Amino acid sequence: MHMTDRNFSCSIDSTLTVIGDRWTLLILRDLFRGVRRFEQLRRDLGIAKNILSDRLQKLHDSGIVLQRPYQTNPIRHEYHLSEKGIDLSPSLIALMHWGDRWYADGRPPTILTHATCDTPLTQSTHCVSCNIDVKPTDISSRPGSDMAQFETVQAQ
Amino acid sequence: MHMTDRNFSCSIDSTLTVIGDRWTLLILRDLFRGVRRFEQLRRDLGIAKNILSDRLQKLHDSGIVLQRPYQTNPIRHEYHLSEKGIDLSPSLIALMHWGDRWYADGRPPTILTHATCDTPLTQSTHCVSCNIDVKPTDISSRPGSDMAQFETVQAQ
Repeated sequence: MHMTDRNFSCSIDSTLTVIGDRWTLLILRDLFRGVRRFEQLRRDLGIAKNILSDRLQKLHDSGIVLQRPYQTNPIRHEYHLSEKGIDLSPSLIALMHWGDRWYADGRPPTILTHATCDTPLTQSTHCVSCNIDVKPTDISSRPGSDMAQFETVQAQ
Repeated sequence: MHMTDRNFSCSIDSTLTVIGDRWTLLILRDLFRGVRRFEQLRRDLGIAKNILSDRLQKLHDSGIVLQRPYQTNPIRHEYHLSEKGIDLSPSLIALMHWGDRWYADGRPPTILTHATCDTPLTQSTHCVSCNIDVKPTDISSRPGSDMAQFETVQAQ
């Protein structure tokens, strides 16, 4: 990936402001696995209650996690991923596959598969014009519409 | 993504142990952009010297970042991504695209493109058997080779 301009912003900042914390990403991993309840999350992650509570609240406030009551008196919630949360799937897959390639010694502990046929998933970065997978060294970048608009205004 | 067993491990842990920190991911983003020197990184990120120094050292120790001297007396290094570091490209693209979809209001600040034709990149999760893109809700998982081996041993 080579950038043509160093000074424009990118959405990685926005993403990391919301989920750029190890515990948050591990909680999301567990939610994808189907872990739903506070006590299960706490045990599975070995996380302190106050930290878990804080991260779940932030994920809820960001619209990534939905709370659904499963018990009243006292009220207890299950935690589910919203559409926005489910949309983090490619990010978690990419992070997992990198760990598989560099830390699993050729033997990934878990394999993600296509549910209907059990084939291991592949992830690729693609150019629809050339119809080829694009290597990291063949990636460039340019300012998006906001910046393009800004430059047009400046040029007038 | 639905997991058939909650208790097996996965490589997201390994990955996050190494890069699961907001500053680390922002440093990696800058290295992908071509920012190479300590002072440039410090200014671009607005990061404290001691934190930047610590994160760069850890990235170097993990084999993700290479140091190349560009000056002696005093010695100064440029920081480059190793093959292992460059291999984080799909993870950063996925995180960036999620931010584009949910925080850019339809106007991504930066667009990653195929260098040779300037077409915006797409990223997909694919099943090579069915030759289709797989949605998050159609993803399952199973223990990898380590666990399979373990189960075989147990069954004997």
